[in-house]
Amino acid sequence: MSDRQVPPGVGLDVASMSIGILGGTGDEGRGLAHRFALAGGMTNADAAESADVVIVAVPWDGHAALLASLTAPLAGKIVIDCVNPMGFDERGAYPLAVPEGSAAQQAAAILPDSVVVGAFHHVSAVVLLDPAVGTVDQDVLVLGDNRQATDLVQALADRIPGARGVYAGRLRNCGQIEALTANLVSINRRYKAHAGLRVTDL
Amino acid sequence: MSDRQVPPGVGLDVASMSIGILGGTGDEGRGLAHRFALAGGMTNADAAESADVVIVAVPWDGHAALLASLTAPLAGKIVIDCVNPMGFDERGAYPLAVPEGSAAQQAAAILPDSVVVGAFHHVSAVVLLDPAVGTVDQDVLVLGDNRQATDLVQALADRIPGARGVYAGRLRNCGQIEALTANLVSINRRYKAHAGLRVTDL
Repeated sequence: MSDRQVPPGVGLDVASMSIGILGGTGDEGRGLAHRFALAGGMTNADAAESADVVIVAVPWDGHAALLASLTAPLAGKIVIDCVNPMGFDERGAYPLAVPEGSAAQQAAAILPDSVVVGAFHHVSAVVLLDPAVGTVDQDVLVLGDNRQATDLVQALADRIPGARGVYAGRLRNCGQIEALTANLVSINRRYKAHAGLRVTDL
Repeated sequence: MSDRQVPPGVGLDVASMSIGILGGTGDEGRGLAHRFALAGGMTNADAAESADVVIVAVPWDGHAALLASLTAPLAGKIVIDCVNPMGFDERGAYPLAVPEGSAAQQAAAILPDSVVVGAFHHVSAVVLLDPAVGTVDQDVLVLGDNRQATDLVQALADRIPGARGVYAGRLRNCGQIEALTANLVSINRRYKAHAGLRVTDL
C-alpha cells in the first residue's frame, strides 16, 4: 500500500480501537496484551479478523508463513511488526540477515494491502509482564512510511505508562532497529539490567 | 588481534594517554578534538604515528584505503572507529551495506595487529562543536571484542562532560549501531532536534 493510500483503520482514535495480537500466547505477545489490558485467548486468525490494529509478536521462524496465511483478514488494517530476527550462540545474540532488509519490510512485502509499521522491538517481555514494574522507562521507536499510521502507533505506545512513542524513520530504516535488540541483550548480560532506550533532546 | 592479545596501549591510563584523530580536519574529527582538548593540525600519518589511541573519523569513502596505508603505524594501538556508512537521497538517510558487516569490522580486517573498538557514532559534530553546549546529554555506545580496550574507550567517553560510555556488545554487533545514525537523522528532521540516546536501567 503506497504512502498516499490510507486504510480504514488509520482514522481510528486510539482509545476506541480494538487491538489484536498475533503470537498472543508467547511472552512478548502476553506482555503487550497485559499492558494494553487486552483479554487473552484469541487465535491468530480471530485476532487478525476482528481487530482494527494487529500487532505481530510471533517468533521469526514462521513469521513469513503466518502472515502469508492472513493476507485477506489483514487487508486494510494497520499491522505493527515487533519481530526481531536474531540468532544466539556461545558469544551471545546477533542479528540474522533478512533478504527484505527487516522483518517489517518482509511483512510489507507479504501484505501489500495492509499498512505495516515497525514498533515495540525493545520493550522486553520480562518488563511488560512484571507486575512490580508500574511504568516502562523507555521510548518506543516507531517506523513506517505512512504518517497517519505512525502517528497512531505513537499514540498507542503513549498508552503504556512511562513509555513514549517516537517516530524514528521510514520502514527501510527498520532493520537496524530490529538488530539493535542484540545490543540490548549484550548490555543486559554485561550490566545485569533490563536496558531500554530514551531519545534525548526531544 | 585475538581477544587474548593485549596491545601496549591497553594498559594506559586515560588521563595520560595521547589521542590522535584521523580525519581531524572534518567536522566530526574537529568536534571530538575540541571535546578532548586536543591541539589540531596533525596529519593523519602523524596522528597514527605519535598517538597511543587513534580515533578514525574519516568519511566512509576512502575509509578502507586510508587504513590500509597506515597498518604499520597503527599496529599495537587501540583504533576507535566512529564511521557511519550512510547514503542520502530525497527520502533521507539510509545505511549502506558493508561487506564486512560494519565499518569497524572492516577496520579490524584491514588492521590485524591493532585492537579496533567502535564508539562515538551518534555524537553529532554540531553538538560537539557548539560552544553553547556545555554537556553532552547522551551515552556513547562502545563495541569491541577486547574487554580492556572497551573499558578504556568507555573511560575516554566518560571524559566528555555529560556523556557516559556504555558497553554495547561485540564488534559483530556494530553494524546496526552505525546504521542507527540514519534513524537519528530521521528523528532530527522530524523533531528539529539533535537527538542522542540514553540507555535506561543502568
